[in-house]
Amino acid sequence: MITRFTVPELHTMTRDLADVASGRRPADVVIGNARVLSTYSERILEGKEIWLYKGRIAAVKPAGSHRAVSGMPQPYDAGSGILAPGLVDPHIHIESSMMTACAYAEAALLNGTTTIFCDSHEIGNVCDSDGIEWMLEDARQAPLNIFLTVPSTVPATTPEFETAGGDLTPHKIGALFDGYPEAVALGEKMDFVQVAMGDTRSHAILAEALQRGKPVCGHVYGREFVAAFAASGITDTHEAIDKDIADDLLEAGLWIFLRGGPPTTPWHSLPEAIKTITELGAHSKRVCVCTDDRDADDLFLFGLDWVTRQAVVAGLQPEQAWSMGSLHGATRYHLDAELGGLGHSRRADIVLLNDDLEVQNTWYGGELVVEDKKITPVLEQQLEHQRYTYPAAAYRTIRIGQDLTLTPPLPERACVVNTIKAALPGITLFHEQVSLDIADSWQHHFTAHDLCFVTIVERHGKSGAVAHGLLKNFGLRSGAVASSVGHDAHNIIIAGTNEADMQLALKTIADNHGGVVVVDAGEVKSLVALPVAGLLSDKRAPVVAEETLRFKDVWRAAGCTLPYMGFNLIPLSVIPEIRITDKGLVTVPEMAQLPLVEPA
Amino acid sequence: MITRFTVPELHTMTRDLADVASGRRPADVVIGNARVLSTYSERILEGKEIWLYKGRIAAVKPAGSHRAVSGMPQPYDAGSGILAPGLVDPHIHIESSMMTACAYAEAALLNGTTTIFCDSHEIGNVCDSDGIEWMLEDARQAPLNIFLTVPSTVPATTPEFETAGGDLTPHKIGALFDGYPEAVALGEKMDFVQVAMGDTRSHAILAEALQRGKPVCGHVYGREFVAAFAASGITDTHEAIDKDIADDLLEAGLWIFLRGGPPTTPWHSLPEAIKTITELGAHSKRVCVCTDDRDADDLFLFGLDWVTRQAVVAGLQPEQAWSMGSLHGATRYHLDAELGGLGHSRRADIVLLNDDLEVQNTWYGGELVVEDKKITPVLEQQLEHQRYTYPAAAYRTIRIGQDLTLTPPLPERACVVNTIKAALPGITLFHEQVSLDIADSWQHHFTAHDLCFVTIVERHGKSGAVAHGLLKNFGLRSGAVASSVGHDAHNIIIAGTNEADMQLALKTIADNHGGVVVVDAGEVKSLVALPVAGLLSDKRAPVVAEETLRFKDVWRAAGCTLPYMGFNLIPLSVIPEIRITDKGLVTVPEMAQLPLVEPA
Repeated sequence: MITRFTVPELHTMTRDLADVASGRRPADVVIGNARVLSTYSERILEGKEIWLYKGRIAAVKPAGSHRAVSGMPQPYDAGSGILAPGLVDPHIHIESSMMTACAYAEAALLNGTTTIFCDSHEIGNVCDSDGIEWMLEDARQAPLNIFLTVPSTVPATTPEFETAGGDLTPHKIGALFDGYPEAVALGEKMDFVQVAMGDTRSHAILAEALQRGKPVCGHVYGREFVAAFAASGITDTHEAIDKDIADDLLEAGLWIFLRGGPPTTPWHSLPEAIKTITELGAHSKRVCVCTDDRDADDLFLFGLDWVTRQAVVAGLQPEQAWSMGSLHGATRYHLDAELGGLGHSRRADIVLLNDDLEVQNTWYGGELVVEDKKITPVLEQQLEHQRYTYPAAAYRTIRIGQDLTLTPPLPERACVVNTIKAALPGITLFHEQVSLDIADSWQHHFTAHDLCFVTIVERHGKSGAVAHGLLKNFGLRSGAVASSVGHDAHNIIIAGTNEADMQLALKTIADNHGGVVVVDAGEVKSLVALPVAGLLSDKRAPVVAEETLRFKDVWRAAGCTLPYMGFNLIPLSVIPEIRITDKGLVTVPEMAQLPLVEPA
Repeated sequence: MITRFTVPELHTMTRDLADVASGRRPADVVIGNARVLSTYSERILEGKEIWLYKGRIAAVKPAGSHRAVSGMPQPYDAGSGILAPGLVDPHIHIESSMMTACAYAEAALLNGTTTIFCDSHEIGNVCDSDGIEWMLEDARQAPLNIFLTVPSTVPATTPEFETAGGDLTPHKIGALFDGYPEAVALGEKMDFVQVAMGDTRSHAILAEALQRGKPVCGHVYGREFVAAFAASGITDTHEAIDKDIADDLLEAGLWIFLRGGPPTTPWHSLPEAIKTITELGAHSKRVCVCTDDRDADDLFLFGLDWVTRQAVVAGLQPEQAWSMGSLHGATRYHLDAELGGLGHSRRADIVLLNDDLEVQNTWYGGELVVEDKKITPVLEQQLEHQRYTYPAAAYRTIRIGQDLTLTPPLPERACVVNTIKAALPGITLFHEQVSLDIADSWQHHFTAHDLCFVTIVERHGKSGAVAHGLLKNFGLRSGAVASSVGHDAHNIIIAGTNEADMQLALKTIADNHGGVVVVDAGEVKSLVALPVAGLLSDKRAPVVAEETLRFKDVWRAAGCTLPYMGFNLIPLSVIPEIRITDKGLVTVPEMAQLPLVEPA
């Protein structure tokens, strides 16, 4: 079984590597007839071959050097292609792909990504430390280097505003650092307003990381918060939406992770932020690229390799861009002696690229796991039969009450309702008050004002709360859509036009222990089951991708104007202007709770 | 008292810094009317001011911003100069300056150096772990950030070839890592042949560092050793003598420290090695500058600031060069969140530069310690009265026998002698066989062949050994010179023309518990007393510099062709071609022991 631990620790094998590099012992793999992309010098070196031993790079040598050593294996012919280090993704949430870490590895390796720094913030919000530890075990069994950036902001707000499953106190965060060597940093400190304002709990969490010498990852919007955020000891961000804030952040001492994603989404901030380099003349040595979140289907099209190529599209040199995608992330986390370059003694996490930086092959720890853009049989076997199985408790996280009423009573007199107005790209949601006359059905109001119901059902078995709201311009014409992924507390969101279909959507999610569903006229039209913590499928990456793709078609056909990932943000009460949680409507950043219905 | 610990640890003060950066609390120092050299973006930023709080940078703001915050102090006027981070020297041996760490700090701060990574290899060779721990205590009381790279190669060879005071076993090295958080790396692994050949002890020492996740510093000569050296997990070197080996080392995954020093010495390899950047097109992001060794007097003229400016002379941009002198070293040791740039939350180790990168002022931990190129009164007081005092045991390290005979018997018949031929620059010493006829005195031979005696006296109280040799072309006309600094075992070296003066030189060293001395006709002509471990003066930097300068004049006047620092390398039995230790003559790298006199 290929995992991160298949390659022996360096301290146990320096003598062997010295023997191989000196030609006293044969390599066990030679990759020949290659150019080498050096992330150290940002050059492409001609006429090279690489000698591997037990999953590490023993030496990079001039082409043909193997002939002088007896017992050397026949070289693998790289066909004059470019050998480069596997990509290093410095910031991702595996849960966004709705698959397990073991499954995620398949897509990552196809994209040439061999290392990820994952913030398991979502499963932490549902299952607290337990969920994070399950995912760490999942990660340890995956054929991928998966490091943890310990979730720092669980819950995202306070119990006053939302019921979450997790509560990662400073003490629990410290325990994760102490218990898991792969917990190399504190994950994105996303409550940047609280950090800037000096909130006690936020800074106590920062202290847990800083006093252990662990870097702190961040997430900040708004140039006005940069100074205090950086002063608090936070040293990276992936949320630089334009060149000016990118420049501010870089100068304040933060590493910048340029985030790329499907160009139609707000995830694709790279083209603007990279102008800090291409237009403002900043150096690229403290700039990386990352993916952050990726739908399962997009993972195959818009992986970190794609993001890296986008940096070339934006005007950077290929060697520079690939360094940003590999060595720089490794350096940010102090792992450049192990990862991010083809230096001697490093892990043999190597990709073979064509001249357009497209990944042809991937060697993970010296093992050929992707060849000609396809998973090799050895990895195929493992992925099919040896993925980590989450414990039974992970499959029992949808805990809702009986006989819930999912729609509000019809107002009996003229009134004003506080609605949530959807608009693309779907991050910000707008507060709009709508005046309702007397009508004999909600359907009348829905048609008149382009409204539908939006209901949040607490699902952690805590409060049993249900909150009713109205969603404007969402476009859903009939039936209901629902999701057990509802950032960040992951209560169940149901949008719908009638009680019966909303009930069916909720029941379908409950029966499947989680999922996303489209229902119409008493029939389930599409479902992706997410039984693990109500967040993750337990299937393989291509299966989840295929299911997601089909689901999105049905979703769009139902008329939904917000993409699925935007829909899941409806309860995220840290983004303006108005949100709905299981505690009801709340405006952001004022954090004022509002009733759904007010007198006219 | 100003030390590294005067600035509170970051985790204790993030809330305060957020308050200051947000303008909710006044800074305690503002440095205004400045440009800022950004090591993050490699640009000079116009119109800035820096807000400090309790020794850290709270924020870098647009000039004049302090006016909007009540209670702010009057800004210190930087006169439109350039504020830059204090320099970071990634590799030095304090002992080379023949002063204590507390004394060294004075010169360093005048040079704008606020952090050094020191390898206390010499005191380790004399006093084993005890000496390293004394120097660590000295370092903790110094007004300078002093980190330890744990000496890795003590003794430099084996007891078969030399008697050393120290024997740093893998176990002792592990204990130093575990006992001292400032032990951030393994110091230069200089036995590169043994490393490349897979020597058991050498690799056991590497493992002590690697298994603790500590970087390993190196030192390697010869392109043929690079592959195996790098494969052994070593990730830096300061010994790149030309662009080709620098390029090899960089591509093998090592950080390169370009070493600069007095241009007449072999220490100044920067101008050749930097061509890997200026001619071969390598990127500079993994390149630093360092000083390695520096005589006390040279320390004031050829500090790290001078080395950094030499990178500009070689064609680099000033911002790029200063980054190589600060941020890059901090990054190499994973301390870039604390050092090496003017990012928010960093230590306020700041220099004020003119446009030629000459250091005008230095703030150490927010305290103005150098102003207009002079030590400020607060630091003057501390340096004069509060330097660390080494324990009594450190003053008792010259332990030699009684009634030693320092010169060999005059051969009674024609013979061949194996001599050590000196030649500039003084690193390599050449093996020359000289035929001697019968003569009635050594003086006859000396005149005929430009010879003098060279004698090594074991001084650790172990073997009591004395070894006799002959030095050719050293130029000493009369009297004797001697030193208790004799790399790396630091036995006493005495060169001389007669027994009486050599005895006086030895006695003078013994009486002073160590030193370097020039004697002639029964009179001590010059002496620098080095009572601490026989390696260090206990005086202040300018005093040691002045004494050294005067000593060098007398040394040269005596006719000595090798500079003092080269003389001290005579016993260093890891450099070709021939050396003399307390065990006698040995050829390198063959490690063949030779008699002084052979039959004709």
